Amino acid sequence: MQIWLAKCAGYCFGVKRAIKMALDARQETDRVYTLGPLIHNTQIVNQLRKKGIAAIEDSNQMVGEVVVIRSHGITRNQRQVLTRNRNKLIDATCPYVHKTHKIIADMVAAGYPILIFGDGNHPEVIGMLSYGDEETKVIFNDYQVTDSCHWQKLCLLSQTTQSIEDFTAIIGRLLPHCNELRAFNTICSSTSERQMAAIELARHCELMVIIGGKNSSNTKMLAKLCARITNTLHIETEDELVRDLFSGIQRIGLSAGASTPDEMIIRVYNKIKEIYGEGDAVTSIAQIPSFKEES
Amino acid sequence: MQIWLAKCAGYCFGVKRAIKMALDARQETDRVYTLGPLIHNTQIVNQLRKKGIAAIEDSNQMVGEVVVIRSHGITRNQRQVLTRNRNKLIDATCPYVHKTHKIIADMVAAGYPILIFGDGNHPEVIGMLSYGDEETKVIFNDYQVTDSCHWQKLCLLSQTTQSIEDFTAIIGRLLPHCNELRAFNTICSSTSERQMAAIELARHCELMVIIGGKNSSNTKMLAKLCARITNTLHIETEDELVRDLFSGIQRIGLSAGASTPDEMIIRVYNKIKEIYGEGDAVTSIAQIPSFKEES
Repeated sequence: MQIWLAKCAGYCFGVKRAIKMALDARQETDRVYTLGPLIHNTQIVNQLRKKGIAAIEDSNQMVGEVVVIRSHGITRNQRQVLTRNRNKLIDATCPYVHKTHKIIADMVAAGYPILIFGDGNHPEVIGMLSYGDEETKVIFNDYQVTDSCHWQKLCLLSQTTQSIEDFTAIIGRLLPHCNELRAFNTICSSTSERQMAAIELARHCELMVIIGGKNSSNTKMLAKLCARITNTLHIETEDELVRDLFSGIQRIGLSAGASTPDEMIIRVYNKIKEIYGEGDAVTSIAQIPSFKEES
Repeated sequence: MQIWLAKCAGYCFGVKRAIKMALDARQETDRVYTLGPLIHNTQIVNQLRKKGIAAIEDSNQMVGEVVVIRSHGITRNQRQVLTRNRNKLIDATCPYVHKTHKIIADMVAAGYPILIFGDGNHPEVIGMLSYGDEETKVIFNDYQVTDSCHWQKLCLLSQTTQSIEDFTAIIGRLLPHCNELRAFNTICSSTSERQMAAIELARHCELMVIIGGKNSSNTKMLAKLCARITNTLHIETEDELVRDLFSGIQRIGLSAGASTPDEMIIRVYNKIKEIYGEGDAVTSIAQIPSFKEES
């Protein structure tokens, strides 16, 4: 049995930054809030709550508090409410997400109708949408461009965690209906790198185990891309792993979403070794053998 | 044996306009010149020469003359030379081509590096290129985007007679390397319509006959697209048709490039009927049965 870890997996820059900003704020004050979960990882959010960093769902409930704005951003209206209620805001919005807000505001000002490629139910996309105008719409893979559609000019951008293949496929369907299509590739580079590494690894494995929040867009995307290639499991913790899942499997690939800590990757790795009855537990991610292309 | 004509074939608006402008100019004056062929159809260019409208290859050779600028445009430098030499210019540049010159000039002014998708040896593309700056490049289907390529912003536009599928394929390769990709769909609508009609027809025919200049970009593209589907011949005149080409063929589709007159389509149609020994000669294009989707 072999376990391989994707070349690029786990915490991204934006998630690490948000956690650090929340913990730093907690050092300075007794109570820290986040509007909705800081990141899409239940285990980490629970750990933060135990450290005095609580997630509140309604922006009206916080008055005069220290509020960390979560990594995937909030709406323009939520920000206004938090400010009006004299909260001290610590903005941990991922810079890639923040950039989408600026692009949308600029393109509205420049008179472009805007389409956002992404999951309309995801808080990141709901936040993006709030910077648009009444013409701004969310579209996804199933978007139908009818023959009568025509745009003199159109702006298209993506939720930061989508796949570049799906994004370019939509562009291919839109372009024949546009005179000018101004596409902003707002898929974050660590999302792209993580996806490419997972796809590369999946081609060599009989089973891919993708670790991360069930509500995490980028983790779900990793699982979806790998499932196109090989058998794939999406789990949040090692407790979801049972012996039967590995029956007859000799090569297992591991990858993890941007909000999955190294600690969880290690726990999954150790649990798989335990199931196979092999070796000692590892304690740091460096000990997991990296994937190498077979010659 | 059945002969079907594509729903959309032959002269486009820009070609009709250029011929009319040249003939109108000839009514007003004894001598009219064009810089290079007015349109890419040898037979029509020969007819125009007999009517006193001659094509000259070198812009320096005309001084104080009436010069019609050809449908697919000239370079900025050629235009300056013609103006400096006190020629009276009649601008028959196709408005779709003219628009590409304006987009390139505007995008250079806005600081975008520009890639032109098209055939770098075609006069239209050479004309487009002359409105760019030292960063402006021509690319085609074989363009390799290396891993190290990156553009903060990039403008892409197309020769007016390319295929939208090929254009979007290039965009799909470029987008992962761009933060912003501003794509102008400068493929002219009659090119797209003619291509779609030819492709639709080719799916129902054992042989497609594409009529038009061997130097005509849009005609070559029609032949290329049909050849992906069925047996395809690209001819300039009916004289290229011989009995052997039709051996065992029962369904023939006809289409023609944007610079092919109705008269030539009729001559080809009559020649095919003659080879099969069927019916009377037709004299106008309305008599050629249009293609209908079979139920």
